[in-house]
Amino acid sequence: MESALIAWLRQRLPPHPLLRLGPGDDAAVLRPAGGEDIAVTVDLLTDHVDFELSEADPRRVGRKALAVNLSDLAAMASRPLAGVVALALPRRGGLELAKSLYEGMLPLAEEFELAIAGGDTNSWDGPLVISVTLLGQVPACGPLRRGGAKPGDRILVTGSFGGSILGRHFDFRPRVHEALLLNERYELHAGIDASDGLSIDLMHLCEESRCGAMVRTDLIPVSGDAGRVEPVMLKHNLRSEHAPCSLRPDEMTPLDHALGDGEDFELILAVPPDEAQRILAEQPLDVALTDIGCFTADPGLWQSDAAGTLSKLVPRGWEHQFE
Amino acid sequence: MESALIAWLRQRLPPHPLLRLGPGDDAAVLRPAGGEDIAVTVDLLTDHVDFELSEADPRRVGRKALAVNLSDLAAMASRPLAGVVALALPRRGGLELAKSLYEGMLPLAEEFELAIAGGDTNSWDGPLVISVTLLGQVPACGPLRRGGAKPGDRILVTGSFGGSILGRHFDFRPRVHEALLLNERYELHAGIDASDGLSIDLMHLCEESRCGAMVRTDLIPVSGDAGRVEPVMLKHNLRSEHAPCSLRPDEMTPLDHALGDGEDFELILAVPPDEAQRILAEQPLDVALTDIGCFTADPGLWQSDAAGTLSKLVPRGWEHQFE
Repeated sequence: MESALIAWLRQRLPPHPLLRLGPGDDAAVLRPAGGEDIAVTVDLLTDHVDFELSEADPRRVGRKALAVNLSDLAAMASRPLAGVVALALPRRGGLELAKSLYEGMLPLAEEFELAIAGGDTNSWDGPLVISVTLLGQVPACGPLRRGGAKPGDRILVTGSFGGSILGRHFDFRPRVHEALLLNERYELHAGIDASDGLSIDLMHLCEESRCGAMVRTDLIPVSGDAGRVEPVMLKHNLRSEHAPCSLRPDEMTPLDHALGDGEDFELILAVPPDEAQRILAEQPLDVALTDIGCFTADPGLWQSDAAGTLSKLVPRGWEHQFE
Repeated sequence: MESALIAWLRQRLPPHPLLRLGPGDDAAVLRPAGGEDIAVTVDLLTDHVDFELSEADPRRVGRKALAVNLSDLAAMASRPLAGVVALALPRRGGLELAKSLYEGMLPLAEEFELAIAGGDTNSWDGPLVISVTLLGQVPACGPLRRGGAKPGDRILVTGSFGGSILGRHFDFRPRVHEALLLNERYELHAGIDASDGLSIDLMHLCEESRCGAMVRTDLIPVSGDAGRVEPVMLKHNLRSEHAPCSLRPDEMTPLDHALGDGEDFELILAVPPDEAQRILAEQPLDVALTDIGCFTADPGLWQSDAAGTLSKLVPRGWEHQFE
């Protein structure tokens, strides 16, 4: 699994004067001589895992490949600068496919003032692979990071969760402007984007912050889509080593979908209590900000409902499985 | 084919204040606010095209994935800074495979003082895919580029050509230090690394420089490996739309291999005549520098042998084929 590889890699990477933040966050941060800090992130998408090319408009696939990377920059509160795109195209129809992918990417790039700087285009006998690398400008006050949440901090989230497989995983808006605004105007301790699943990404944030979290499940903003997911759609999203057999797709409630579906690409933030109150009162974004609980000194995830009943929250979501 | 896509893309990319050099060279060049110019390059390698995983030590595969990118930075005379690595791993044995790939990359990264900053690790049911993105520091005097060769410039090359399939395509040394030294000490007009094939990469350089070239075939440094290639090894390298049927693998001479095999990863440079003479007299590198001809005002490639017999040189080498 990916986290095992990251742990292995972290032990082997020698320190480097350029590297302010290495593997394990949503993006790495470099400090070039004499320049501003730069965030670098890469996300590789493959057919049959991140999309089904036979069923999807390739422009939506191209858009998604760029958008998931923009979401990683949002998680670092970094302003998109430039990107490069590497493609492995099926030989048959590859040129038209590549154009469609770019037609999906270019409007989003323009919207976020991102320069498409170059790329590498390959053909092969395998399925479509898209790897996008983005550079972002780290704010002067420093990047948002996964580490930094403190016990007592509130958990604030943007938007709503669950059922993105119905279409939102293609068409979501990366929360770049939202993250930049919040990070500039308020004191944020930590952040991550919900790409793998609300509960598992919250766990990732807790692990890097060496703390735990308590989620008020009755406060989680559940997307309307979460109640409309057919079990068959979830073949990918339910593969998790954390709870391989704990939930049957046909028994999942909308809340289960909100906690574990993944690909919501909303922000999960750790905010000091006073600051959280201020943010919630001001609601400075076009999208809603919701307080769904708090960080705790004890590690692990807990949930409580409206009645105050407490139980363990088993993190669920997408993790790449390999052995 | 890739050049058709690049042409299409160049027409559609809006100008961007950050972009000093966009698609079409060995790397893009960015000019971040207040900082030094940064070269960005990406190369994606796939099983069965760039290597055969079933036959190769995965450490050599990992090393190659990094080395081809370092060679792109060399072609821009840029100093390696940092890189990110995206993997699509077969599920079975994926973790051990990923470790082996990194074990091949890390010593090369350390040798070139490159920070491995992060990555993205995925699993899927397809073959191995490795996408590496590197950032490099562009020299104060500007990057080396494909455009800039002038009629009368000499064609200088490092090392020797042909037969890299016998092993050198895995174990070659990227000419980073050589390019930095030459670009710092001498006036170079243009440069490219010979990744697709000496003749086809020379053509790429000519196209960007809007000129032609005349190659003295008797002066080309032919690798000893070029005479030992078995026809069966060349299934990939002979697929070229430029000369789809012009050469039968079993009829190729060592010179044919030197001109078209690809993956030599040597430098091809355009140098003003006086400067070329100085370089050749001083031979400032550990590897030999050879004058193999000159650039011409007329477009197209020509060849002449020791007897002065002139003929068209049909560019051959690797181009990704898709329609």
